Amino acid sequence: MSASLAAAASSTPMLPTPEQIRDAAARIAPYARVTPVLRSAALDALSGAALHFKCENLQRGGAFKFRGACNAVWSLTDAQAAHGVVTHSSGNHGNALALAAATRGITAHVVVPEGSVRAKVEAIERAGAILHSCAPNQAAREAMADEVQRATGAVLVHPYANTQVMAGQGTLALELLQQAAGLDALITPIGGGGLAGGVAIAAHAIDPALTLFGAEPQGADDAMQSLLRGTRVTTIVPNTLCDGLRAVIGEPNLDALRSHRVHVITVSDAQTIAAMQLLWSELKIVVEVSSATVLAAILQQRERFAGRRVGVVLTGGNVDLQALPW
Amino acid sequence: MSASLAAAASSTPMLPTPEQIRDAAARIAPYARVTPVLRSAALDALSGAALHFKCENLQRGGAFKFRGACNAVWSLTDAQAAHGVVTHSSGNHGNALALAAATRGITAHVVVPEGSVRAKVEAIERAGAILHSCAPNQAAREAMADEVQRATGAVLVHPYANTQVMAGQGTLALELLQQAAGLDALITPIGGGGLAGGVAIAAHAIDPALTLFGAEPQGADDAMQSLLRGTRVTTIVPNTLCDGLRAVIGEPNLDALRSHRVHVITVSDAQTIAAMQLLWSELKIVVEVSSATVLAAILQQRERFAGRRVGVVLTGGNVDLQALPW
Repeated sequence: MSASLAAAASSTPMLPTPEQIRDAAARIAPYARVTPVLRSAALDALSGAALHFKCENLQRGGAFKFRGACNAVWSLTDAQAAHGVVTHSSGNHGNALALAAATRGITAHVVVPEGSVRAKVEAIERAGAILHSCAPNQAAREAMADEVQRATGAVLVHPYANTQVMAGQGTLALELLQQAAGLDALITPIGGGGLAGGVAIAAHAIDPALTLFGAEPQGADDAMQSLLRGTRVTTIVPNTLCDGLRAVIGEPNLDALRSHRVHVITVSDAQTIAAMQLLWSELKIVVEVSSATVLAAILQQRERFAGRRVGVVLTGGNVDLQALPW
Repeated sequence: MSASLAAAASSTPMLPTPEQIRDAAARIAPYARVTPVLRSAALDALSGAALHFKCENLQRGGAFKFRGACNAVWSLTDAQAAHGVVTHSSGNHGNALALAAATRGITAHVVVPEGSVRAKVEAIERAGAILHSCAPNQAAREAMADEVQRATGAVLVHPYANTQVMAGQGTLALELLQQAAGLDALITPIGGGGLAGGVAIAAHAIDPALTLFGAEPQGADDAMQSLLRGTRVTTIVPNTLCDGLRAVIGEPNLDALRSHRVHVITVSDAQTIAAMQLLWSELKIVVEVSSATVLAAILQQRERFAGRRVGVVLTGGNVDLQALPW
């Protein structure tokens, strides 16, 4: 176990408070977009619910991840910031951290496992990050991030098990509940749980009666299994097309799901792909496959959503247009 | 020549006044969406301009056409409305008229040429219209629309050579100029000219200094040729993938382009398809091929747009996801 992983394991990050989430909203306001909430008569008819889609695919960098990364970057002291930030993610968080670091004029180091999707790596490079290549496994990623930390003094910004990151993700719930009055349920995808956790805390601070749902791929149902067993399950080998949802649920994130009674619904990749096509054709927006889990969950368990006003978080829109999954 | 075509030719519809466009905005406000304006740092960098994308793909029915159809439907007297409306368009206007008629609880008759795209025809049917099938040529379409008019008393709502339709389309310019302050240029695609004409009148009423552009496929450049020759060119056989831009420019529409000095830029389908991919990947939205002509024009004639704040109208998002053009 690398030093940083040991440190992360021994000191579980605190969950953000509602106040920290409100602070995060003010902190990122100059940089992040207030994303629109879209409706669709056709999808309402199909679900029997009043669906309010929060379009984080339209966020800077094409994903909600910019919120958390931006809050983390702007929460650093000047002395900390001078050394830059580092993360090991070739996906949306890596890109978001690179963009966020650029807003503060500091260096972002992104550890990129060999074999990462070329388009995503190029986007991270375009955003101005310094790339560090490593072998494509968790140990190599953490070892390289460690090495970068030691060599540069850069601050590690974990994709989800990080208080400021969770607080940043939670800001989208503050926005959504302002944009769409009278919601009685909310659903987000669950990957590492930074989004689901931050949203749960923010949403229940405003309306404790909101029912919270999370959608998870059947092939990466670690949150579901962890909640069922009462302890964090870290041994699942992900088998899903939803590349944004393969991470293992974080420790503080699991706590948040538990204490906010988030109901997890697992969906098959086939259900998710069908839902993705519906989102593209009815909402006229490009969302990535991970984002479509939420609509798949709603359509799979129609009776739990029918007749309700539901906030539906669409997490990102970074898609390889040459390789669509249908 | 059918009776209705003769009538249309003999009595050219008036252009809407700015006041009629403001009236239209109030009339359709309960039914139409205020569509968002999206930005993209990547597309700004590529064009050298500050592009403000008005997303009418997110309008009801997935296209700006709902504005004009809705204004036409709600401009009818109760006595007129009781007989319903009719049009011959299997595309976005037919769908928009069906949706608009439904908002007033009246009948829409849509003449659908055989061989129309099945998905579009199904959407029109779902919206509650009565379909009338005919042979796939202009004469048969007009004859059938005529017959429906005679049999039912329904009012013909022409897709673009219609004062109330043009006024409705113009409302998007009122919105855009409120949403994005200080624009110095605007660009729309040009098909029949209902959009380009309505937008020109509305935009110049607010800011006479705005430079107006129109994008047209090289394979359907009737507006360009008509402006060059000083007379309406109706003999072009369209040869373009841009199915929304194959119509011949209308007479009043051409007048509007001329009097408002709309600069037409023609683009190849290859340029348009490349621009379409850029819009999908950078803006994370689904736009149809016709919509992408505007970005193709901006990138083709970069020097005319660089350094300017440009309003860019994205007209629609009704796409067959199983048959993308790349």
